[in-house]
Amino acid sequence: MKKCVIAPDSFKGSMTSIEVCQIIKQKVAEFFPGCQTVCLPIADGGEGTVDCFLQAMQGEKIMVPVHGPHMEDITGFYGRFQDTAIIEMAAASGLPLAERHLNPSVTTTYGVGELMLHAIQHGAKQIILGIGGSCTNDAGCGCAAALGAKFYHGAQTFLPTGKNLGQITKIDLSELKSLLNGVSVLTMCDVTNPLYGPNGAAVVYAPQKGATPEMVKLLNEQLIQFDHILQTQLGYSVAALPGAGAAGGFGAGAVAFLQAKLQSGIDTVLELTKFEKQIQFADLVITGEGKLDQQSLQGKVISGIAKRTFPYHIPTVAIVGDIGEDIASIYQMGISAVFSINQVAIPFSESKKRSKQDLARTTENILRFLKVFH
Amino acid sequence: MKKCVIAPDSFKGSMTSIEVCQIIKQKVAEFFPGCQTVCLPIADGGEGTVDCFLQAMQGEKIMVPVHGPHMEDITGFYGRFQDTAIIEMAAASGLPLAERHLNPSVTTTYGVGELMLHAIQHGAKQIILGIGGSCTNDAGCGCAAALGAKFYHGAQTFLPTGKNLGQITKIDLSELKSLLNGVSVLTMCDVTNPLYGPNGAAVVYAPQKGATPEMVKLLNEQLIQFDHILQTQLGYSVAALPGAGAAGGFGAGAVAFLQAKLQSGIDTVLELTKFEKQIQFADLVITGEGKLDQQSLQGKVISGIAKRTFPYHIPTVAIVGDIGEDIASIYQMGISAVFSINQVAIPFSESKKRSKQDLARTTENILRFLKVFH
Repeated sequence: MKKCVIAPDSFKGSMTSIEVCQIIKQKVAEFFPGCQTVCLPIADGGEGTVDCFLQAMQGEKIMVPVHGPHMEDITGFYGRFQDTAIIEMAAASGLPLAERHLNPSVTTTYGVGELMLHAIQHGAKQIILGIGGSCTNDAGCGCAAALGAKFYHGAQTFLPTGKNLGQITKIDLSELKSLLNGVSVLTMCDVTNPLYGPNGAAVVYAPQKGATPEMVKLLNEQLIQFDHILQTQLGYSVAALPGAGAAGGFGAGAVAFLQAKLQSGIDTVLELTKFEKQIQFADLVITGEGKLDQQSLQGKVISGIAKRTFPYHIPTVAIVGDIGEDIASIYQMGISAVFSINQVAIPFSESKKRSKQDLARTTENILRFLKVFH
Repeated sequence: MKKCVIAPDSFKGSMTSIEVCQIIKQKVAEFFPGCQTVCLPIADGGEGTVDCFLQAMQGEKIMVPVHGPHMEDITGFYGRFQDTAIIEMAAASGLPLAERHLNPSVTTTYGVGELMLHAIQHGAKQIILGIGGSCTNDAGCGCAAALGAKFYHGAQTFLPTGKNLGQITKIDLSELKSLLNGVSVLTMCDVTNPLYGPNGAAVVYAPQKGATPEMVKLLNEQLIQFDHILQTQLGYSVAALPGAGAAGGFGAGAVAFLQAKLQSGIDTVLELTKFEKQIQFADLVITGEGKLDQQSLQGKVISGIAKRTFPYHIPTVAIVGDIGEDIASIYQMGISAVFSINQVAIPFSESKKRSKQDLARTTENILRFLKVFH
């Protein structure tokens, strides 16, 4: 084996995709010493997204003083590679940052806008936004404000948050638009929730951000009113767009204010890392994730990888935690074989403690087997 | 792949070795349609041993009316292949036969002797005895009696059982010896217990055959006395021989009365099935067992298989239930790779219900992977 590409998702609850890459890479080096390995840990848009991209693209991590979810001073960061900036929303508006003061009615995405601003001021022409793990419900208004948008209530400007989005009477995007001129924004988005309603941002996601049932109701009403204002101001609605309700309505705000494109995380990662170029001349592609199931077959990591290796007939193996039912169609998609890292019949509460060792051993045996026949 | 040899142990608690063979064979037929498969389900000497041999050697199953552990009428059986008879002790003196009347102080191996007698009378020159799963503690006296041995207490003959082995005052083996003339007996024995004492037949195995602590003590004392009598009568002791305490002292009796050789089960099976001939021109050997651990590396199935495939450089894969710690030396022994059938992190109480499916799927993925590279 001369070249092996390692492109796994994280194993939720036990290993990050970077850790998975390292373990597999080490085993490849052990059993195929001369083999070139390419590590592309797959980011999901949440915490760790910037590190994944940096790992895959050998970029630079930029630290920036910004405002946190409660407008407190924090140090945020983003990744830069040539004229592309990778920003994870969690770095400025993530749940852990507000851990002891969870309140999606008052938290803001202002710091996310500051990260973007810094990147643009330093030459970024393409911005990739990972929007997982947020503690906000401000429909991206804070972010837009940091980029120059002005939100008016009557004659006064203010910084709208979840609780008072409905008080916006006018939005001035002129400064923001001139700033974003020539800058493209791509948002990694794997959910399809609309802005409001029973499947909307407030009802589905606000409870895990600390909202009480009453607050959920208020937030949902504010999002409805916000959509009315947007329609009046911009001439169109983004409320029903699949993904509008992602990240506390940030999906909607990204489209409305930043002219962002919402795109599946895996497609974004694989495009940005030039996956199809990376797999040229590869003898084997190894992917994986915590649980392979029906979901995995629909726009998630493993199917995304298979879609791109299949046309080139590159052997592609998935190493996963659990293997669910009815996954037979994965072989038609282009996955050569699937192996579970479970080595002993024990529940996940126990097995997760040994997942690194189990991954190493499973990888080792796949490589040993390969070595015999290759 | 043109030829695949399938030689697994049983997966204790979930699948017999014959079932394991069938599942793997079916998958090989599915993914390598033209491939020749050779099934050698490995017998362990216990229940199912005859069926395993019949499967491997296309022999004949002979039904014989014999006496059960309580001298009741039952139908026993043995396997015949050319001039070799395969007898499993469990067919005439097995635990399930005495299920409701477990009592190792009174049960007999008489029926085992009757099976041997039938085989010899019908031309058997080699007898293979599997001695697992017995409910007896008679040191093989019942078996010997059925073959013509006479056990005296004073002037009276009697049929000794566990409770009264010590009452034997004289043993006449003349008739037995003339019957066994020209017949070799091989006993499959994987335990090393001596006849009596803290590691002996009574102390270690009698409790699972229904003995109370008092009965264990009695049985042990009787075995000690029996050894004295044997020494007086035969001029030597077999009590300390590794395996003498197997199957309620049947190991000792087999050596003393039948001039049997005690040999590990796996060696016996692999010799008898001409394993080294069977693997000629094989592209792959698949073995397996319920749990791969330190024990597996010491004279058990997987190491026995590896020992024979290694010199011929035949790729050999182990498909197992659980994979234990510190099994790395198995690769030096000649196992190419080890795969666990566990697909989901659940305890054995649940996973055993889906073990057939999990084995099928694991095998399928190994074969799919092989197909890509072979």
